[in-house]
Amino acid sequence: MSLETENSPLVGVKNTLSNHHDGLAKLNSGLLTTLLGSVQAGILVFFVFGTTYSNDDYSPSEYMIFRDIMVMLLLGFGYLMTFLKLYGLGAVGFTMMISILAIQLNIVVELIMRFVFGKAGDADTILPLPLKLPMFIDGEFAAATALISYGALIGRASPVQLVLMTASQSIFYALNKVVVVLGFCAAEDVGGSITIHMFGAFFGLACSYALGPPKSTTNADPNRISDILAMIGSTLLWVYWPSFVGATESGVPLNENFCVVHTILALIGSTGATFYMSQQLGHGKMDPVHIANSTLAGGVAVGSSARLSMTPAGALILGVMAGMISVYGYAYSTPYLESKGIYDTCGVGNLHGLPSLLGGIGSIVFVLLDSDAEFLSFGPLQQSLRQLLAVVMTVALASSSGFLTGKAMTKAAPAMDEEGYEDAAWWEGKYFNCTGGSETEP
Amino acid sequence: MSLETENSPLVGVKNTLSNHHDGLAKLNSGLLTTLLGSVQAGILVFFVFGTTYSNDDYSPSEYMIFRDIMVMLLLGFGYLMTFLKLYGLGAVGFTMMISILAIQLNIVVELIMRFVFGKAGDADTILPLPLKLPMFIDGEFAAATALISYGALIGRASPVQLVLMTASQSIFYALNKVVVVLGFCAAEDVGGSITIHMFGAFFGLACSYALGPPKSTTNADPNRISDILAMIGSTLLWVYWPSFVGATESGVPLNENFCVVHTILALIGSTGATFYMSQQLGHGKMDPVHIANSTLAGGVAVGSSARLSMTPAGALILGVMAGMISVYGYAYSTPYLESKGIYDTCGVGNLHGLPSLLGGIGSIVFVLLDSDAEFLSFGPLQQSLRQLLAVVMTVALASSSGFLTGKAMTKAAPAMDEEGYEDAAWWEGKYFNCTGGSETEP
Amino acid sequence: MSLETENSPLVGVKNTLSNHHDGLAKLNSGLLTTLLGSVQAGILVFFVFGTTYSNDDYSPSEYMIFRDIMVMLLLGFGYLMTFLKLYGLGAVGFTMMISILAIQLNIVVELIMRFVFGKAGDADTILPLPLKLPMFIDGEFAAATALISYGALIGRASPVQLVLMTASQSIFYALNKVVVVLGFCAAEDVGGSITIHMFGAFFGLACSYALGPPKSTTNADPNRISDILAMIGSTLLWVYWPSFVGATESGVPLNENFCVVHTILALIGSTGATFYMSQQLGHGKMDPVHIANSTLAGGVAVGSSARLSMTPAGALILGVMAGMISVYGYAYSTPYLESKGIYDTCGVGNLHGLPSLLGGIGSIVFVLLDSDAEFLSFGPLQQSLRQLLAVVMTVALASSSGFLTGKAMTKAAPAMDEEGYEDAAWWEGKYFNCTGGSETEP
Repeated sequence: MSLETENSPLVGVKNTLSNHHDGLAKLNSGLLTTLLGSVQAGILVFFVFGTTYSNDDYSPSEYMIFRDIMVMLLLGFGYLMTFLKLYGLGAVGFTMMISILAIQLNIVVELIMRFVFGKAGDADTILPLPLKLPMFIDGEFAAATALISYGALIGRASPVQLVLMTASQSIFYALNKVVVVLGFCAAEDVGGSITIHMFGAFFGLACSYALGPPKSTTNADPNRISDILAMIGSTLLWVYWPSFVGATESGVPLNENFCVVHTILALIGSTGATFYMSQQLGHGKMDPVHIANSTLAGGVAVGSSARLSMTPAGALILGVMAGMISVYGYAYSTPYLESKGIYDTCGVGNLHGLPSLLGGIGSIVFVLLDSDAEFLSFGPLQQSLRQLLAVVMTVALASSSGFLTGKAMTKAAPAMDEEGYEDAAWWEGKYFNCTGGSETEP
Repeated sequence: MSLETENSPLVGVKNTLSNHHDGLAKLNSGLLTTLLGSVQAGILVFFVFGTTYSNDDYSPSEYMIFRDIMVMLLLGFGYLMTFLKLYGLGAVGFTMMISILAIQLNIVVELIMRFVFGKAGDADTILPLPLKLPMFIDGEFAAATALISYGALIGRASPVQLVLMTASQSIFYALNKVVVVLGFCAAEDVGGSITIHMFGAFFGLACSYALGPPKSTTNADPNRISDILAMIGSTLLWVYWPSFVGATESGVPLNENFCVVHTILALIGSTGATFYMSQQLGHGKMDPVHIANSTLAGGVAVGSSARLSMTPAGALILGVMAGMISVYGYAYSTPYLESKGIYDTCGVGNLHGLPSLLGGIGSIVFVLLDSDAEFLSFGPLQQSLRQLLAVVMTVALASSSGFLTGKAMTKAAPAMDEEGYEDAAWWEGKYFNCTGGSETEP
Repeated sequence: MSLETENSPLVGVKNTLSNHHDGLAKLNSGLLTTLLGSVQAGILVFFVFGTTYSNDDYSPSEYMIFRDIMVMLLLGFGYLMTFLKLYGLGAVGFTMMISILAIQLNIVVELIMRFVFGKAGDADTILPLPLKLPMFIDGEFAAATALISYGALIGRASPVQLVLMTASQSIFYALNKVVVVLGFCAAEDVGGSITIHMFGAFFGLACSYALGPPKSTTNADPNRISDILAMIGSTLLWVYWPSFVGATESGVPLNENFCVVHTILALIGSTGATFYMSQQLGHGKMDPVHIANSTLAGGVAVGSSARLSMTPAGALILGVMAGMISVYGYAYSTPYLESKGIYDTCGVGNLHGLPSLLGGIGSIVFVLLDSDAEFLSFGPLQQSLRQLLAVVMTVALASSSGFLTGKAMTKAAPAMDEEGYEDAAWWEGKYFNCTGGSETEP
């Protein structure tokens, strides 16, 4: 039996593929070494000459926030993407790589943005930069944005392309957040619906469009176990989401309370709506994709308005709407986008794109409800317009920079393998050489 | 080879089964839509007209507690139940559904209980209800109780039946906790041995009895991977359990210290005892079921007495006894109950039932050791009697309401599939249609 | 088809193996019962007569630290070791057993060490011992050390041998930490590079050497799923590592800030370096072993110097060097050690051994940079020498005590099975009896 299997035609195919994979990896190796080496070396040089300790008091709750969001990045995003049955190492492994690159790059890039566009003489625009935990938390926000974009590309983009994407996005992300949304528009976006989720989703979708359609999606499927592993990510994201939304408000009790309570309610709303919608669309059966993703849509949507007095019911309703839109997105938007050549492996358009549009547009209304809030820069009508402007400019900047980045990625690095979505392309493991049985398709 | 497989007689069986599953799901769909929709809509209406913000100060440690217990619910309970090799999506997915339903329902139901049975004019009996984090934490307690009951039924009860169970239990749980145990009996139960674990276990067992024995338990087995996934739940429950027991004492250092130290010691005791007992019963081999479950029995038992001055040794000994009882339960009680027609998929009778009885009865003694504690309402003897009364009434109310709920569940919704314990009945996934190989039996 | 499989020659082999396993487990059972029973009973007696409550104020942040490190022990170390495709229950299960034994034993042993070698009359040398959370945290440090040693032996040492190892190490670990490193040498080692990682690694390697080479390593391989499960451990260790390094500095803001910021930077550095090195050595392909382990090397190395003013760049560079050394270790040191008869299942020599040597030697330099720090006992030069002395003495004591312990382990308990690295030897599960297919080799 086993001899027969080894002699079966499939083995030959597999070996050829394996060799092909090796060739592709070798082709990329020099460029990847150069890229990773130069980015990390450059950051090291910056740290040697450009950083010092901050004199700010240490805040244990800032560390708690940092840690919570790190769980969301490495385990939350990482495992949510392990639903791909043959790409689990890429999901968790490249999540780690993208995260630490984005955090480091963001510390440098936001400093430059503050220096160029901010007020001279501010404490955090001077060199050497006094490092403090909030800068690492800002870095985590940038990493979350990069991971959202990665979700659209996972399985297709090579490691070299991912490093390029992370580096390019770090600039446009910071430009959009620091200069456009928070600076020019003075928009309210405490939990990042606009600056993080919307930017990440549209950047990723545009990037994916630029990469062109995958040659095959046969490997891009879940199996029983990978779907359950994905729920580790989903549930951890659910649990720690309030820390994410309230991250910058640590130490401001009123705002922190609003952020936490509204986020919990919005997540409850989207979870309830997702179960309702999913089984209705599925004629009594739930879709694991909806349950793993759309349940979180409330957290995405509530980000812009979370510290506004939106009322508990407002948060719950926003969450319900976000969950519904997200499930509809998986049902209708994904096939439509694919017909237009926009492939979105994880459906980030449905989890982050549509709910962030809802949240961004919702904030146009919610700033009216709480127009006296001291953290708003303008009166009700103007603030509303500025929220709208922030949405429009973010979609425009994310889409255009994402598309250009995607084009650059295809130029810079060899095209992806014929068969994508397979760890064997980028990871070493004896088990990749097995044929059939439980090793290759667990 | 592959052609032969596709033509094998097994495929026919599978397709028939698959169709049968689809038929069952479709049969339930309308009712599930109605149920989920009306519950969520009703809660939405309540939130619109019945809630407002609380003026209480925001407490970061309350959020920390909420978050820790949410880890226990979604990941702890969720993954502990993934030991079923073919029901992992049901374990994690329906855990999520039950949790958010129970949290929301409990906020409404406990308000009604306080309003009807409590002192009029209390701040938390007025409308609109000033929402605060402790109410969400109380909701998590209700969710934990529902998930314990779910553990007895998992794999057999349909989603419709689970929603009904959650809704029905939310009333009886709150009645038992607010009115009977804490109100009428004035029993001490800071960490919920009686109100949560005992109620949940006996409710679930009675409910299971009412459902009748399953037609087949061939699918209700673990495999190598599902047993390891279950340990994710087990270890997370272990780690966060002290937050659960001390949840209501946040901000009261003396009580919080007692709760945390006693719970750690009780868990250490039950873990040590479980390894001892399991390998002894297994003649040198451990049983994964014991290690995943009975190690936690100390946390169950210590709940009632955790803020009493029970001495460190008292907590450790209670834990050791709980671990032993729990392992014995899996070895002897489970087969006995099955012979009486009471099936208990996860053995909640052994993890929650028996140890909570030990904890409840233990509290009769421990209130004597610390009879001056300011939070006790009565002198030593009377308080002891009241602990006993609380145990008796909880077992009675949980069993009777659980049985009636189970009977109602069987009336309201179509009976479970011939073959239970299979995700294919309620979840969509291409992999369910595969025959043989790693996809169907990973 | 299925009949044919059942009659295949493989089944016979399997059944023989299974019986062999049963025989081995039975052979160990009496001794294991005695060992586990007497250790737990002895500790119970100590708790009854030797412990009381502490009058110290309760510190919520100490509980947070305890909880974070418990995540690292039960889930971090536990799942990191599930990379063994057939030994996942042993990885997570025995991690739990070792942890709770080590925590309990350490409370007793460190008390004895303080009593014998410390100043008489100190509050924590009296009986009954006033139990407080920092003692449990010290217990967690001892457990981490035992789990590091377990990593070298996993799959080969029997449960009896593991209990013996844990008990023996608890004495030598405390002797080295309390008496030699912190007492005699007065060395700086806030995050345990020397006392925990170095001691655990050298103890484990020496112990492994004493056990002799395994008869077969055919089972000691990962598969696709086990490698992804291992990343759960890896990422959780990454996230909570700063809590580990800063554990004793809770409430001392300056030191805590240094510990947290330096650890984050060191981890970022080792993660960046690991991706760089791994794909370079692998010609464009990453090795999951490196990504799961070497990314954490920065946390190991930064432990000794974390509360010194080492500059942010210093922490980042130390992390980069640690990551590089660790990857090189997996590539070159592991095969070299195996050729000398030192088998190291998880490569703890590369994750803990080499980076801790780097960290220990680094601390010789870093104490010069911050020689005025109030927590240092001596002037710059002498403190440097004392760091060196601590490294030398720790390597010597760990290696010698580990070797003797290993020899005692081989005398005390029957030799390991022919085929090691298999849960079937020590765990019950119907699935162990299956042949072929997904059950035995998932």
